[in-house]
Parts: sequence; structure tokens; C-alpha cells
Amino acid sequence: MTFTPTSYQPYDFANRRHIGPSPAEMEEMLGVVGVADLDALIAETVPEAIRQAQPLDFGPPLSEQELLVHMRAVSKKNKALISLIGQGYHAAITPPAIKRNIFENPAWYTAYTPYQPEISQGRLEALLNYQTMICDLTGLDIANASLLDEATAAAEAMTMAQRSAKSKAMAFFVDEALHPQNIAVIRTRAKPLGIEIVTGRPSDLDAAAVFGAIFQYPGTNGVLRDFTPQMEALHAAKAIGIVIADPMALCLLKEPGEMGADIAVGSTQRFGVPIGYGGPHAAYMACKDALKRAMPGRIVGVSIDARGNRAYRLALQTREQHIRREKATSNVCTAQALLAVMASMYAVFHGPEGLKGIAQQIHSRTVRMAEGLRKAGFDVFPKKCFDTVTVEVGPFQGAILKSAVDEGINLRKVGETKIGITLDECTRPETIATVWRAFGITDADPDTAPAYDLPEGLVRRTPYLTHEIFHMNRAETEMMRYMRRLADRDLALDRAMIPLGSCTMKLNAAAEMIPVSWDEFAALHPFAPADQAEGYAQLIGDLSAKLCEITGYAAFSLQPNSGAQGEYAGLLTIAAYHEARGEAGRNICLIPVSAHGTNPASAQMVGWKVVPVKSLDNGDIDLEDFRAKAAQHADALAGCMITYPSTHGVFEETVKEVCAITHEHGGQVYIDGANMNAMVGLSRPGDLGGDVSHLNLHKTFCIPHGGGGPGMGPIGVKPHLVPHLPGHPHMGTEGAVSAAPYGSPSILPISWAYCLMMGGAGLTQATRVAILNANYIVKRLEGAYDVLYKGPSGRVAHECIIDTRPFAELGVTVDDIAKRLVDCGFHAPTMSFPVAGTLMVEPTESETMAELDRFCDAMLAIREEIAEIEAGHVEAAASPLKFAPHTVEDLVGDWDRAYSREQGCFPPGAFRVDKYWPPVNRVDNAWGDRNLTCTCPPMSDYAEAAE
Amino acid sequence: MTFTPTSYQPYDFANRRHIGPSPAEMEEMLGVVGVADLDALIAETVPEAIRQAQPLDFGPPLSEQELLVHMRAVSKKNKALISLIGQGYHAAITPPAIKRNIFENPAWYTAYTPYQPEISQGRLEALLNYQTMICDLTGLDIANASLLDEATAAAEAMTMAQRSAKSKAMAFFVDEALHPQNIAVIRTRAKPLGIEIVTGRPSDLDAAAVFGAIFQYPGTNGVLRDFTPQMEALHAAKAIGIVIADPMALCLLKEPGEMGADIAVGSTQRFGVPIGYGGPHAAYMACKDALKRAMPGRIVGVSIDARGNRAYRLALQTREQHIRREKATSNVCTAQALLAVMASMYAVFHGPEGLKGIAQQIHSRTVRMAEGLRKAGFDVFPKKCFDTVTVEVGPFQGAILKSAVDEGINLRKVGETKIGITLDECTRPETIATVWRAFGITDADPDTAPAYDLPEGLVRRTPYLTHEIFHMNRAETEMMRYMRRLADRDLALDRAMIPLGSCTMKLNAAAEMIPVSWDEFAALHPFAPADQAEGYAQLIGDLSAKLCEITGYAAFSLQPNSGAQGEYAGLLTIAAYHEARGEAGRNICLIPVSAHGTNPASAQMVGWKVVPVKSLDNGDIDLEDFRAKAAQHADALAGCMITYPSTHGVFEETVKEVCAITHEHGGQVYIDGANMNAMVGLSRPGDLGGDVSHLNLHKTFCIPHGGGGPGMGPIGVKPHLVPHLPGHPHMGTEGAVSAAPYGSPSILPISWAYCLMMGGAGLTQATRVAILNANYIVKRLEGAYDVLYKGPSGRVAHECIIDTRPFAELGVTVDDIAKRLVDCGFHAPTMSFPVAGTLMVEPTESETMAELDRFCDAMLAIREEIAEIEAGHVEAAASPLKFAPHTVEDLVGDWDRAYSREQGCFPPGAFRVDKYWPPVNRVDNAWGDRNLTCTCPPMSDYAEAAE
Repeated sequence: MTFTPTSYQPYDFANRRHIGPSPAEMEEMLGVVGVADLDALIAETVPEAIRQAQPLDFGPPLSEQELLVHMRAVSKKNKALISLIGQGYHAAITPPAIKRNIFENPAWYTAYTPYQPEISQGRLEALLNYQTMICDLTGLDIANASLLDEATAAAEAMTMAQRSAKSKAMAFFVDEALHPQNIAVIRTRAKPLGIEIVTGRPSDLDAAAVFGAIFQYPGTNGVLRDFTPQMEALHAAKAIGIVIADPMALCLLKEPGEMGADIAVGSTQRFGVPIGYGGPHAAYMACKDALKRAMPGRIVGVSIDARGNRAYRLALQTREQHIRREKATSNVCTAQALLAVMASMYAVFHGPEGLKGIAQQIHSRTVRMAEGLRKAGFDVFPKKCFDTVTVEVGPFQGAILKSAVDEGINLRKVGETKIGITLDECTRPETIATVWRAFGITDADPDTAPAYDLPEGLVRRTPYLTHEIFHMNRAETEMMRYMRRLADRDLALDRAMIPLGSCTMKLNAAAEMIPVSWDEFAALHPFAPADQAEGYAQLIGDLSAKLCEITGYAAFSLQPNSGAQGEYAGLLTIAAYHEARGEAGRNICLIPVSAHGTNPASAQMVGWKVVPVKSLDNGDIDLEDFRAKAAQHADALAGCMITYPSTHGVFEETVKEVCAITHEHGGQVYIDGANMNAMVGLSRPGDLGGDVSHLNLHKTFCIPHGGGGPGMGPIGVKPHLVPHLPGHPHMGTEGAVSAAPYGSPSILPISWAYCLMMGGAGLTQATRVAILNANYIVKRLEGAYDVLYKGPSGRVAHECIIDTRPFAELGVTVDDIAKRLVDCGFHAPTMSFPVAGTLMVEPTESETMAELDRFCDAMLAIREEIAEIEAGHVEAAASPLKFAPHTVEDLVGDWDRAYSREQGCFPPGAFRVDKYWPPVNRVDNAWGDRNLTCTCPPMSDYAEAAE
Repeated sequence: MTFTPTSYQPYDFANRRHIGPSPAEMEEMLGVVGVADLDALIAETVPEAIRQAQPLDFGPPLSEQELLVHMRAVSKKNKALISLIGQGYHAAITPPAIKRNIFENPAWYTAYTPYQPEISQGRLEALLNYQTMICDLTGLDIANASLLDEATAAAEAMTMAQRSAKSKAMAFFVDEALHPQNIAVIRTRAKPLGIEIVTGRPSDLDAAAVFGAIFQYPGTNGVLRDFTPQMEALHAAKAIGIVIADPMALCLLKEPGEMGADIAVGSTQRFGVPIGYGGPHAAYMACKDALKRAMPGRIVGVSIDARGNRAYRLALQTREQHIRREKATSNVCTAQALLAVMASMYAVFHGPEGLKGIAQQIHSRTVRMAEGLRKAGFDVFPKKCFDTVTVEVGPFQGAILKSAVDEGINLRKVGETKIGITLDECTRPETIATVWRAFGITDADPDTAPAYDLPEGLVRRTPYLTHEIFHMNRAETEMMRYMRRLADRDLALDRAMIPLGSCTMKLNAAAEMIPVSWDEFAALHPFAPADQAEGYAQLIGDLSAKLCEITGYAAFSLQPNSGAQGEYAGLLTIAAYHEARGEAGRNICLIPVSAHGTNPASAQMVGWKVVPVKSLDNGDIDLEDFRAKAAQHADALAGCMITYPSTHGVFEETVKEVCAITHEHGGQVYIDGANMNAMVGLSRPGDLGGDVSHLNLHKTFCIPHGGGGPGMGPIGVKPHLVPHLPGHPHMGTEGAVSAAPYGSPSILPISWAYCLMMGGAGLTQATRVAILNANYIVKRLEGAYDVLYKGPSGRVAHECIIDTRPFAELGVTVDDIAKRLVDCGFHAPTMSFPVAGTLMVEPTESETMAELDRFCDAMLAIREEIAEIEAGHVEAAASPLKFAPHTVEDLVGDWDRAYSREQGCFPPGAFRVDKYWPPVNRVDNAWGDRNLTCTCPPMSDYAEAAE
């Protein structure tokens, strides 16, 4: 180590930080895989025919430090004024302890969706708290664990009403006081389903003519109405009543359940979640018990584990699209788990007294503000409000709005002569004084005694948040420890690989996450004037351009805020294209049987009929079947949905032919971008023949999974589809699929940072190493497990399917293996997708060789345990496979097993000192569905369970 | 819950977030304690005579949100220019993963000093990495786990040299190229010890005339010298040679050990720690093996646990002041553990190749910059440099400095005609171009090929960071998991109460911590022009004013960056006062036997003689003895050092008399502020008669302990002492005790935020509840344990001493109880201070009733286990007390104990699901000192230990 220049690049993010294997490890791994170098492996894996012509080039990559400096400069182009625009988005205070210990804590944000309950008890508890909070506030029986945003929740409620209503009417009534984006998204959803939208005032409702009706509470203009008469009329007509309700307002106002509503939806953003220029935040949905099986989205429920102790898990999963495909209640897959957790913690932090105090402060200040305006002679509507008023200003609208902006405040432009004002948790007396100044009022005192003025009949009469969890000690010390305890119960990426096939659980680097916390990104209102969001414009523009270059598409819409919603938006785009060409009748969609369940579920949402296409034995699409069905449906062919590389983990050579056949018969090609992590820099869906694709930014582009959301599913399209991309009422265009124009923009800095720090070469190398890591696992497991579906050269793409079906006859299920992996300190791979009884493993490029080896050691040891059963040395029922996962309770109790404590708890792969201990034994899913409980059970139950 | 106004204040930080017990819990606790209300308890506890006259009033308290908005506005008054001032402070890049996962993670920053090794293995490993890094870089045998800053480390090295040198000379040679603050702090330290400081060039050294010599490498002006000749001369004269070395420079340059140096010190700030306007950062000290017992500060060493497995713990503790008091090697107590951990992780992240690459980049850019200056005709010194040059600019100094500032860059003013420039990790080619522009150079290209130009003889020839830990996979995924694993091995405030008497382990609220991360506080250079630090000036001014109001003093110096250093600075202030009045001979210091060990150790540092004063049986100072000794030493009485309330946890009524006696005999009163958490808002040391006090901002004022530092120990003084407070060369004044004028200013926002959010009433309530919590514990443990020392009404102050000495005859030691508490999920209380064989418990106001009960349940259950021995039911050697703490290894192995696994691992108090499992069994301290290893052992050893 004398003074010779080093060739080591300490600031090389791509090769030193993001990509797991070091150069030396890669060398060793290539040896195991049996190829000379990475180029050779890629040549064997990715067919020449589908390779892209030019390497990706975004110029020199940025170091972490350069990225942060750059991002800071861009963020400063956003101006976070005080926004009193309302319309469903409100400034909110994130309690700093929640910000630091959840929002900025990888133990929370790197977790996956809690499908494996034994390693997810912490976030399941937090989400159960969320559901309990929603049931209490809405006065309804059951709530799900969040939906994407208020507008999509409203649209989901509409289709749920249609599924549930006994009324056979085909129209749906929409209160004209809904926020414009809610109406827009409902209209988009209604159109392909043939639902007629009737808008009007509640008093206009003709209940007999509709299967359901939806109302906003408070109305977008601030109006407060009691919908009890409408609910009665709807029920008499066997129709369903829905209320979109602001949860903060419900702290003071009569709840939807009390009015007789069947379903309530709304946004929990103002419960401590930053506005973030529109998202992400969690929308809620609650309903009467009778409707629960029609409810979309994930529901957390209470069950028991193998010892009979209380355990949480997802309930009623049979409703979901990964089981029911096109018959599912919805294509909803990603929720907003991280944001729902934050909102529920906000409620735990404040408790009912605190929430009431906050709501009273908001209301009281609104009353005071309105009073000042009225006294000055303004016409203020409504007479009694919660937090929102609309002021008639005639020709002075522009002047007042500008005057407010000059003072640092955004008000809402309503029509051409009105101004809307919505106060929030952050409103200070000085804010009111500033608003008044914008209206020319300078002589009033904003800081007077609290005044309340709600309509008598709408004052809430029932308690809420009565469960002990909302009455725990709220000192920060206790809260911090509660959040830590919950986090410690879960296994996330900050402790171990999560080798979930098709989910791409890769590194969410700290440098990518840091800017998300900045006010300049977090505090912007989605409907703020464009000149206040120039930083976002630059980010969105450049990220879109890079995604175009990566995919070979002409334009991207960043509006869809989940992968499934991207699919839906993409199909809508195709449908609009057909319609524009006078071919609206095209409604057949070819989908291979191996497709993600969201594909058929999305197709049904746009009113298409799904025609399944067979697979060959090698997993490829059966080209003959595809050709035949395309020809058979040529007149009505809307398109096809394929995944590339296929869900079988193989780069099919025939993909271009599939696209050509589709085009030949007048269809459009949807290429699902779920597996884009195997393509970036090597191959472009646009070049293959795709017309539209979505990208899961929460897979390939490093947005963390957040324990089940947020996500982002932007869609890219070929030039001919650009005119048909989703619009938004804020832009004066149609076809909105999300509440906010750019979906969940506050997490876009993550994906942008990733692209900027990786550069084109780094992104490409990530893809190559993702493929290397998968092939390394295949090689290491060779002989022990069969891998289904390889390419012609015997290689897989970025994931592999391990066949565990042969063990079924020994009594060993895929579940047993998954739970045994928990003992080894791993989240299980994807189970039974795309082939029942198998495990799909995707390591991603971010895992190191040591972690891959730890996983392979665990899998090989499990295979040995299976061999013991095969050899007749042990009964399946007595194998550690059946008792997995093992807990401390197993260790501390009596032990009469056929194997030792040591064998049970420390299989190969398990850390010794740093072992992850699951908090519960194997969870009984069926028990929970038989004894459905989806709110926090009384504490006394906990005591019993402990006994 | 109808619509009636709630009286609940949701944003009340003091009563809803900071203070642990809820109002309802307080009610219940008061009932247990047996008083009507809190007023009554305080009346019984705090003597009327010492109560302050006026309540604290800082105006209305801020909510968390208001605080953050206010703090943001203040922070914006700081201007974080690019500072190329050098002088020991360098811009550095904190790897984002370290920032997020350590610096901003309560699991790291809320931990205590690792005195209890079984619950501290994570940070002990990180600190062992640090020591290994230092030994490697300096080429010396042993390093400690950090000191406060480079200047104090240099002063410590001087006194260490004096202790160690066989030479009896009384002079110490100081290289004139030391940074000015290093010379200043050495001078301050030397004076009271009678050490003569000789400054000059290394070539001026007369080795025979000194006991030691210290040199700076590179010199403050950039000069690079080989000190081998000086070391040889010193050794010939039996004197000690010390080098202050920049660790970044050591990545390229010949190391001090290779030159023959006996001791090396320096700052590790530039290893990824923000400058923070001067601190905190970790200084290092390393020395030859022969000197190790003379080394101050904490040293982490390797030992074994009860199973013979490797375990870390603090080594050679017998050197430390809590054992040796005035005979200790130093009064050093607080280190900079959190910052040392960050620096060591920086080295793990980059490895030797990365560090070398960074150092080469810095050097190469410096060479290029100097080249450009020379080419333009400037006289640049030295000819060959690492990162620093000094440029002769004659009369243009002011113009160039200003021109640079206008361009956003601070350069160093050196004398009246020179400018210093020091480059760093953040320097970009554009930075060099900007510097050149300030010098009028516009035609050179800063971005040329790397050029290296070091003196041939000083090029480093030896490897460093050869241990495997510095060669682990450096992908962020692996690093994140490594940091998480280490954090999980430790027990910090984010999981449990740390009831350490006299350490005040209270809440470090997230809102208080967040601003510390902001660049506006973190990136400022301590010697930047004052007009760039107006935010800091406001913060320091207002915080000082509040501390004055709290304590009754006239002024505060925020320079001391630990409690012990505050003591030292306070005594220096008194000494300067005596000297100014012509009474320099006063050198007797009365100190009660119950004092903290730092008190006598500090007194000896200012050259005073300690005269111990007896305690009465009730723990009070023996007033007669005090009076007698004061009278006996009246002519030479420098002062007394007392703690209030006493370390016995009692408000002594006689305190004013003690002060009066001292004053009567010409002495000054030092009141140690360690127990200030029992006084704030109730009583003021200044009113009691104190002349000077230090406050531990890391106790009473919420700065987290960081696993053993940082700390802040500002001193307040009466008006007559104000002129004698510490000065600093940057201000042109004398008597510096720290490297930076304001010690560790970047953590001051924490204490300021605490004061602003609590308000006067909140701070006072915190004190009252701290007293309630302590008295609640006393009451709950009544009958089981004796509590030593209560006030006349039977109450304690904010802490209590539990007498465990009676169990000694049963064979149960205080250690057994401490380790058994680990099984219950607690950090042990303070052991054997102030009374050997006892436990001192301080719950603080931040703990909830539930957590206090959990602790009391644990203590009562331990008492039951002792009773089992008393009753003869079990041998002491067979009791769980002796096997504590229990680990998973105990559970999983064979079990032949006299008690069950359940009893061993789940004593009352222990969480079931969320149990904390210590990573090692009881650690053998003596074994480690017998087999001293203070650097990372080879990995092969780990494998052996695991077998």
C-alpha cells in the first residue's frame, strides 16, 4: 500500500453501494455458474433478437453527495406556500416521533406486504389499529387496510355497490358536491362498465333509478348535509348508499353509519401524512358487515397461532385478485400500508381527546375566519361549516387570489366568481389575518375565544376510539418504544433478503429516501399554481424522459399510483384509441394463463372479456394457441397482456411474434412491466412490439414497499397512444384514474435519484447482476430442487421457480418450506405463483453473495429435512418442517419433539446471536376467517390468550 | 363525546410528550406515595429555604411544529459557505446510510456508555473497529475509544507524557506549527500544573530540557515534516514524543509509529462527521503498548463470557476517575462514542482502498490548485503538501478573502499577509476554479489528470485497515444490516428505561433531534466569519440567557464539551479569580467523600489539593467537619465542590451554610450541576450561594448520551467571575479549554428546543415529576429493600440509593442484581456509587407509570429470589441470579439448573414477545485485562469462539 494511484472509485454508487456482490464475489459466482464472464452469461440468457440497439446513456452518474446537492437545488424550485385550497388535501402535522421512527425507518418502509403473517405481526397490529379507527370514526362494521386514494376508493365503492345492490338499475347517483377529482375518477371507471352517472343535489336523488349513490361530507364547497333521508330512500329501493367523509370532520360530526350509509370512503391524509403534491396517502373504506365479502383491498383480521395465541393475518384473501383473477372484487393489490400506519399512529398519539381538540381548533378558527369575512360584507357559504367556506367575490377573484399568493397563501379558485378556503391543523391566527388581508380586511382580531357553530342535527353523539390502544400512555417515550416493538416483530429488508419472485425487493438506498422528507417535496398542494411546482416539473419531466429511453416508449403518464392501476390505465388508453378509430367494439383480451392475477382483474375493469392462452410445457406462451385465438377473435380483439420476461422467469424468443400477431388482428399489446428488472439496459418493451407498459417504480426503481404500499405504476406508450393517456380535471382533461394528476409524486424523487446515481451503465449492470444472482441460486440448488422453466441455454432470467410439488406426496407443503425459512431468518419466496405448489425466487442485484449463500444453505438444509422423511427416518408430522416457525415459546416450554431444540431453532442459515424470532407460531388462517374479527379485540382477550 | 369543547391540549409537548406519567397515572402514583397532590410532595421534599422566589417564565411554550418552524427560521440565519479554512476542520461526506441508520437512529443515539457490557456488544464492536482503525493508521499499539476533541486530546497527551516520562524535566516542547487552538488548550492545561511550554520549530527542540514534545502533521500551515530525528532525541533523553496527525493524511503519509512517536492524537471529524460549527466529533489517542496504563479515556477490549464465547467490554477501568478519583489518569468521562462509531463506520464503508482513493483525490486537487497559484506568480508554501497550502499575498489579503466569500468560499486568514487553503473530500474542480477566481486567475483548467507530489521520504510504506471488517462487502444492503445487527445487540432508551442514578437518561425527543441534521447547523466551520453564524449567535445567546434564569447565574460559557470539562473550566475560572486578586496561592479544595469521581480528578487538574469532608450517617455533609477543615485551611482555601441535591439524592438543608462557610474563609463555591434535574424551576444554585456550576446538557437538557458521548458541560458563574471565563484564540482571548469556541455547538439546538417547547412551567413540572417518579419507586420497593438517605420527611429527591449490601453475606452481589435486571429487560441502575455495594436509581420524569411498575416488579421478583437463598431453599451458586443474564444459548442447550428455563429467562418485568436477548452471557472482566486485546481479533478467533 505505497503511494500508487488507486483505481478504486469510492463514490461509485452503482457498483459499490447498490449492487450487492463485490467484483471479487462476482468473479467467484461466475465460476460457480460456469461462465467466463458476465457478458457470456447475458449472451446465454437474453436472446440477441430482443437486445436493445444502443446502450443506455444518461451522462455521468452522480455520487450520493452530488445527488443530494442536485436534489436540494431542484427542490428549492418548489415553493411550499400555505395552501388553504382544501379539495381533499390539507396541511397536516406529522408528529416528529412518527416521522423519525416510521417514515424514516427502514424497518418500516422496506417491509413487504404482510402475506406471511408470522413475520409481519408488527405492521398487522398497526393496520388493525387503522381499521379500528376507521370503523369507529365512520360508525361502520368493517374497514379494509387502506386503498390508493379517495377518488379511486370512491370508484371502488361504486363498483362494490353494483356488485352488492339488489337493485338492478344501471345508473349511479353522484352528489354534485363531490370533489371534482372524485367525480372524474368515478366517471372514468363507470364508462367501460356501462354505468350511467347521474349528478345532482342529494334532494334530486331518484333512488329507484339507481343501484347506488355517493355523497361528499363535507361537500367540496363546505356544505354539511345529513344524508339520512337519502339512505332511507336508497334502502327502500334496494340500492346502496355511500358517503365520502373527511375523518377529521367525523371527530365532531354525525358519522355515516349513524345516517344509515352502507359504505364510507375517504382520505386519511390529514391524519399526519404530508400532502406531498398529491400523494401517497391512505384512503379508507368501511362498510356494513353484510357487504364485507364484496369489499376490495386487504383486510387485516385476528386469528390464532398453532399454540392458540392471538395472531394477526390478512383475512378473506379469497376475495383478492391473486386468487380470483377476473372474478376478483377489484384489481387492487398495492395499498398504502406505510401511510395507513402513520395515520393510525397519529390517532394513537392523539387519542380521541386529542383528535377532538384538533378538530375543534380547526372548526373554531374557520368560524372566526368566516365571521370576519361576513362582517366585512362578503357573502360566505355555507352558513354553518366544519372547515371550508366558499366566498362570492364577483369580478375580484383574480385580484384576491393573487393578493393571497403574494402573502404566501394559496386559496381555491371556484368557478369564475368564487373563492374556496379550507383551514387545517396548521392554521394559526396569523394565517387567518393574512387571509383577511387578501380580502382587504385589516381591522379584525383573529385570536378570539373558541367559537363553535355546527348544525345541531349533525353534531356527533357517539364516542369513538374507545379501544385501549387509543388510550395508552401517549408520552413520546412510550410511543417510541411501541413503534420499536412493532418494528422488531417484523422481518424487513434491513435484516434479511426478501427473495420474492416478481416483487423485486431491492435496496432502497438512504440517499434516495432522504429528499422525500424535505418540505419542498412534502408540503406542496397538488392543485397549487404550476409556478410553485417547478422543481416537481423538472423531476417529472426528466424522470419521464429517462423512463422513455429505458423502455422505448414515446411518453409516460405518472398518474397511476400502483402497478394494477397502471394496467387499468394502460388498457383504458388502448380502449380510447380503439374508440377514437371507431372500433369501440373491440373487447377481447388475450392473457396467458401464467399472468399475474391483476391482469385479468384489470381487463374486466375496462369491460373486456378475458380469453386465456395456454402455456407450453417449457412455460412459454403456446404460440399456436395464441395465433388461433387471435384469429378467432380478430374482429373483437382489443389486445393482449403479456409479461416480459415471462412470469416463468424466461426471456421468450417468440415475444416479437406474439406482438406481431396481435397487431395483425387489430389488437394492441400491453407488456406488463413487473419484470422490468430483468430488462433495463438490455431490452426495451417498446422495441419488442409493446404499445403500452406500466413500470412498477416500487420494484425496479427502488421505491420501498412500505409494508404493502405505497407504489407507483406509471405507463409508457407508443406515439399513437399519447393522445389517449389519462387526463385530469385540474388540467381540464378527461380520463383521470387517480385523485392527483401525478399519482404519488412525493416518492418520485426516489426513482429519479436511483436513475441519476446509477447512470445508464449502472442501471444496465444492475440488470446483469440481477440475472447473475438468480442463476447463481439455480446452480447452487441444482440437484436438490428442480427449477421449472429455463431458457434454451439452461439459464433463467432474474428469478426462478423452484418445484416443491414432488414433496406433496410426502406430506410436505410449500407452506411448510416457507415457514421453515422463517426459522432460517428469511421471508419466504413467492408461493404458488405462477404455478401452484412452487416457490418463485427473485434475489435482485442488491443481495450479496454471502446472503445468497445463506439462503441457499437454508434451502439445502430444508431439502435434507425432506430427505429424512423420504428415507423414512422421521414422520412428516414429526419433522421440524411441520412445527415451523419455531418461537421462543417452543424453546422455553417442554420439549418432546423428534428433533432437538438446536435443530428446530437454528437450522443452517439462521443467525446465532442476531437471530430473528417470530413473535407467533404458525398462524391458522382458516380459524380467522371462520371467526372474523377485523378490529382490535378487547385487552381482556389478550390476557386470556396469554394464559 | 358530544360537541363540548375539550380541555385536552393536543400540542402540549411538556405534559403530553415529554413527561412520562399521564395526569391519571400521576393521580394514582400520588396515592401510592401517600400525598394529596404534587405540590404537597414537593413541599415535603424540597426545603422551603432553598426554593426559588419566582417561577421560571420564558413566555408561552412552542408546540413541536412551532419549534421546527422557528428553528428552521433561525437556522437560515446561518450561511453554510464552502469553508477551505482547514485548521483541523474539514467538510466531509457522511454516507447517507450512516446518517440515517446511526446518526438519526435512537437505537444508537439514546444508548448509555457501555459500562454494562452484556447489553452493549453492538457499540462495543463498533468502537473496537474504531480503535483498530486508529492503531492501523497511526502505526501504534493501542488506542482508546475517543476523546473530546483534538486540542484536549493534545493536552491529555501532554499530561500523559508527564506521568510516563522518565525524564524529570518540567518543560514541554510545542511545535509552533500546531493549530492555534491546540496550543491554546495545551497552555491552559499546563499553567496550573506548573509545566513550562516551549514553542519553536522541531529543529529547535532541546530534548534534554523537556519531558515531552508535540508536533502537528501536517502542520497548520501545511508543512510536512518527518519527526524521526526528534523522536530519537527525545527517547535518548527519556522523554516522550507526541504527534498530532490527520487520519486522512495518514492514508498516504508515513505514520507516527514509523517515526518512533510514543503517542499520537488527532481528530477523526473528517471521517464522515459533519463539522457542526466545531463539534461534536471524536478525537483519537493511540500509544505504544508500554504506555497503555497511563492512557486516559475509555478503552474497549476483548474478553470472554461465562460460556467462553468472545465478548467485548471496557478494559483497564481501574485507570479511570470513577475508581481512582484524584489519582486517576484524567478526569475524562464522557467520550464521543456516537461520533467515533460514525467515523469507524466511514472506514468500514470505504475500506482502505476507498480511504486511499479519497485521500488521493484531496491531495491531487491540492497539487493542482497550488500549481495554478504558482503559475500565476503566487508564493505558495510548502513546496510539497498533503491538502493545505499557505499563500503570501502581501497587502491583498483582505481583498482576496472578501472576493472568495463573495464567491461562496471561506479561506483562512493567516497573519496579516497570508492566506491558508485546505481542500477536502467535498472539493470539486469547480471549487478550485472559484478559489483561483478569488486570486484573479481565470485561465487555468482545474480538471486535469491526477497529480501526486508528496515528499519521497514521507510516502506511507505500510498497509492499514487489514482486518477483515474493513474488507467486508460494502454494498449498502450489507452495511445497513450490519448497523442494524449491532444496534439490535444493545439495549437503549428506545426499548427500556435506563434508571441510572446521576445520569438522567430522559427522553431525547425527535423534534429536538431533527434540526441537528440540517446543513445550516451541521455544515458551518467554527472559524467562519461571525456574520455567517448569526443563527448560532441567536441560539447561543438565548440558550445562555435561559440557563442563567434557570440557575441564577450572570453568564454562561458554552465552551466545555463534557461535564468533567465543565468542572475543570469552572475551577480554572475560580483560580483565575483568586490570581487576579493576588491570591494565587489558594489551592485547597474541600470535597465531600460522596462526590462524583470527576470532582477530585478535576481539582487535581488545576493543581489543587483535595481535602475530603466527611458525611453524616444520614448522608449529609458533616457540617462540623466542613467548618473545621475550612477554618484549618482558611489561608489557602480555594473553594469547595459540592453536588446539589447531594449524590445521596437528598436536598440538604445546610447547603447555604456550607456556601457561607466557604465564602467566609475566602473560598469560592463550585456546585456540581449533575443533579440539576431535581432543581430546575424549584431552586437555583446561584441563589444557594454557588459561584460557579456546570450543567450537563446531556442529562438535564436532553442531549442524548450517544452510547458514551457527545456531551456538553457549560458553566455558569456569578458576576464577579464573568471576566475569568474561558477564552479562545479565535476571539483573541486566553484560557481555552476546548478546540472550538462553543464546544460542540451542533447539539445545542437539542437543549434549546427542549427549553422552548417546555417553557418555564413545563421545565418545572418535569422536575416535580422526576421527584414523584423517584418517590414512587421508593414506596413500591418499601419493605423489600432499604433506601439509604432520605430527607427529614422520608422523601428522596430525583433518585434513590437501594441498599444491596445486606445480601453480600448470602453471596449475592450488586453485580448479580444488575445482571439479573438484564433478564428483565433493563439496564442496571448505577452500581456502587456513591456507596459501594448499592444501586442508585434515577427514573427521570420521562418514564411512564407502567415502565416504573415493570422495573419495580423486576426488583421485587429479584428480592424474592434472594429470599429463596435466605430461606435456604436454594444455594446462591445455583440461583438464577448467578447465571444471569440468560441468553438464547442457555435456552437451547442442555438444562440442569435448579430452576426452570421459564424462571431463568422470563422473570417478572421481562417482555414475552418483545424480550430483549443479550448476545452474550456474563462477561469476565478480569480475563480481558489479563489477556489484553484492544483491536479486532482475527476472524479465525471468532470461528473458534463459536465452536
